[in-house]
Amino acid sequence: MNYRMILRIIGYILFMEAFLMLPGAVISWFDGEPDVVRAYMISIAIILVVGALFTWTGRKARKGFYAREGFVTTGLSWLVMSALGCLPFWISRQIPSYVDCMFEMVSGFTTTGSSILSNVEGLSRGLLYWRSFSHWVGGMGVLVFLMAIVPLSGKNGGFTLHILRAESPGPSVGKMVPRMKKTALILYLIYTGLTVIDFILLCLAGMPVFDAFCHAVGTAGTGGFGVRNDSLAGYSPAAQTITTVFMFLFGVNFSCYYLILLKRFKDVFHDEELRAYLLIIFASIAVISLNIRGLYGSLGEAIHHAAFQVGTVMSTTGFATADFDLWPALSKSIMLILMLGGACAGSTGGGLKIARFVLMLKALRRNIHENLHPTEVRRVKMNGQGVDEKVLANLHGYLIAYVGILIISFLIISLDGFSMETNISAVFATFNNIGPGFGAVGPTMNYYAYSNLSKMVMIFNMLAGRLEIMPMLVLFSRTTWRTK
Amino acid sequence: MNYRMILRIIGYILFMEAFLMLPGAVISWFDGEPDVVRAYMISIAIILVVGALFTWTGRKARKGFYAREGFVTTGLSWLVMSALGCLPFWISRQIPSYVDCMFEMVSGFTTTGSSILSNVEGLSRGLLYWRSFSHWVGGMGVLVFLMAIVPLSGKNGGFTLHILRAESPGPSVGKMVPRMKKTALILYLIYTGLTVIDFILLCLAGMPVFDAFCHAVGTAGTGGFGVRNDSLAGYSPAAQTITTVFMFLFGVNFSCYYLILLKRFKDVFHDEELRAYLLIIFASIAVISLNIRGLYGSLGEAIHHAAFQVGTVMSTTGFATADFDLWPALSKSIMLILMLGGACAGSTGGGLKIARFVLMLKALRRNIHENLHPTEVRRVKMNGQGVDEKVLANLHGYLIAYVGILIISFLIISLDGFSMETNISAVFATFNNIGPGFGAVGPTMNYYAYSNLSKMVMIFNMLAGRLEIMPMLVLFSRTTWRTK
Repeated sequence: MNYRMILRIIGYILFMEAFLMLPGAVISWFDGEPDVVRAYMISIAIILVVGALFTWTGRKARKGFYAREGFVTTGLSWLVMSALGCLPFWISRQIPSYVDCMFEMVSGFTTTGSSILSNVEGLSRGLLYWRSFSHWVGGMGVLVFLMAIVPLSGKNGGFTLHILRAESPGPSVGKMVPRMKKTALILYLIYTGLTVIDFILLCLAGMPVFDAFCHAVGTAGTGGFGVRNDSLAGYSPAAQTITTVFMFLFGVNFSCYYLILLKRFKDVFHDEELRAYLLIIFASIAVISLNIRGLYGSLGEAIHHAAFQVGTVMSTTGFATADFDLWPALSKSIMLILMLGGACAGSTGGGLKIARFVLMLKALRRNIHENLHPTEVRRVKMNGQGVDEKVLANLHGYLIAYVGILIISFLIISLDGFSMETNISAVFATFNNIGPGFGAVGPTMNYYAYSNLSKMVMIFNMLAGRLEIMPMLVLFSRTTWRTK
Repeated sequence: MNYRMILRIIGYILFMEAFLMLPGAVISWFDGEPDVVRAYMISIAIILVVGALFTWTGRKARKGFYAREGFVTTGLSWLVMSALGCLPFWISRQIPSYVDCMFEMVSGFTTTGSSILSNVEGLSRGLLYWRSFSHWVGGMGVLVFLMAIVPLSGKNGGFTLHILRAESPGPSVGKMVPRMKKTALILYLIYTGLTVIDFILLCLAGMPVFDAFCHAVGTAGTGGFGVRNDSLAGYSPAAQTITTVFMFLFGVNFSCYYLILLKRFKDVFHDEELRAYLLIIFASIAVISLNIRGLYGSLGEAIHHAAFQVGTVMSTTGFATADFDLWPALSKSIMLILMLGGACAGSTGGGLKIARFVLMLKALRRNIHENLHPTEVRRVKMNGQGVDEKVLANLHGYLIAYVGILIISFLIISLDGFSMETNISAVFATFNNIGPGFGAVGPTMNYYAYSNLSKMVMIFNMLAGRLEIMPMLVLFSRTTWRTK
């Protein structure tokens, strides 16, 4: 294991984190909150010292960097980044318990949006900035960003590939352009562009600039932390509709946008995942609108709320304009199932990803065919191209790990004695990086009441969900740490 | 597709069914219930006529019989057998709705034990016999029985193999002896032997002979239909303990018993599935006993009820001595998870099977290893032997289909408006052939209140669960019915 190189990369990540925190300190200074400014300054100092220590230890790193190092770097940097990134909350005493701070921070970086705060409006604006902005930082991936910016790897392309594989959402990494570095850069440009457009539109819809910024970055990362206790319920319908649209947009595979920039509209139109994504969106909105029709003044209003809530769950964002815990059983069941699915691969959304569902159905069809005709050999195809059997093997592993983590987490958090509905949806909502669940963790509630043990389980789940399980599993696997 | 041969086999199955029904008519005749005797006679007549028609149509069947025919035969015979087997309930008007009759019959044959009856004691003994005995018939498999007895296939071994593959529970069929026919015979001998011992012990424990018979066959098939409204709660602790032990025994892979008969104790002791099975049993009983300690008079009593309820869910039987819906959250969660697992492969129990869990964990371990060391190739081993990649591919397909059916069923039965807990556990309990779930379908409740649509979904689920999905999926697949 190339420990030095791993430490060096984490060191760079920490420098970046300290830099991104600075605006929070500036906002607090403007708002005249010296306690928060002090908390930021101490945190930034600690992060810089640790970062310097790491890069110094890793200064003479040797060259070898393989899949194993890629996973470990990814898993560890997210852990360290969260453990230190939550210091401003803790030092400022605005969130007294360290586990709660860590929960909130991990929820931010992993773009989950599950909160332990019952009164969001009680938090300083300087801290609200960092809480929401962490969604944007985590949404596209910090390491991806690092790869795009820093000339770390010299000419070593495999290096970037291993990191990108471990951190990017979806069953396989599509290279947009031959050089991974350029791919990472294009991803970030599209990401920034869409965020800016969302921000401007929200401002035009009458949202205050600070709120618009927080919601734009929260939507971009499909996170879900807002700045008000009732999330988006209190803003204008226009702002809600803009957010609905952008939640769906950020749930789309970013390579589709790249194809649009290249004017390859036909490829976008024929993308199987995108088609399935749109189909599920429209079907869910239609069924739920009819099902909740009686709860709202008009069909239009029912569609408005159905679309927002479907968007929030499908894209795994987690904003809310309505309490879907009060909806009828069918709508609640659809919402629970949508929690599984998530957005497209290569988007900022979490969950299983639509691409995996499509692949699973295809794998099942092949399996049925091969059972009926044992002598024939078939290949699974996606978008007209044959899918590598390794991708299917990873899908299998992913599915098993997914179910296994769900079961174990569910058992542990059951110790706290909440209802089955609350526990199941809490595990779903954190593991799939959505945010709110049902019952005691519903859209108008929060995760504060769970024990520290349960919160730590959910911290693991959020990280495992965001990093697509493997980088977190690898940290706990003996094979990883065995030296040959 | 060899339709004639398929019809001929289903015809034989029907003859067998008519024969097995006869004791029900005799009991009703003794009990002086002419209505029920008449219902039996009409049903038997209909079944014999249909059976004769089928065998007559299939009299000139050609030889070819492949995997496809094996699946279709299995799926169709279970459907037809249930659709006609439920006639006595319907014609006697003791269960007025045909869908309810079908639900009860399928629940019987698939050894689920989910009932739509709120007052079991209101049913005639003649009908109670058939209801309970259907567990025994379905437990080991009707086609397996046919293969063991009837010289259908001449010298064609593949014939028996395809049927056995489609009907036997577990990820792969272990051949105990080279000839499949003999394997089937040995299975049935062990099955009958254990049932007789259970019956005698229950009689000795003071249970009335009729009740002992019904409970012995219900335990053997891991079914769960009892003859009293409070299931086993009203019988002596001795009878309950005997049933606990036999539920666990019938959840063991029958090839282990064959190995014991051959005095190959070492192989039994090293069986990985058996070890996992025992480990889960003891761990679950221990944790639940401590968790429910406060609800019962003594720790001994808590262990007694924990063991019984763990046995009933692990082996997917479904008897009850206590209402586990009233237990604390942790115990309920464990019970819900155990509902997934089920018993060992090659037992009469349902569910995913422990062997699949063990295989899944091994596949996951291999996947992690291959992700870390992409150049190395590893083979999954079970009990010291390499596992065929085809078995793993089928496991993958099974898992996908399993999750898919769970999701779709859950959505459809949500239309009825019951709570999420009720709906989730209803799907689990029918699909895994357990019987009772939680909430409105808990151990003291029944499935009557669900709509006919939901009942039909659950009928499909029970059959899909018992036949390990593939034979039912195949019936709805285009590939099956396509002629080349």
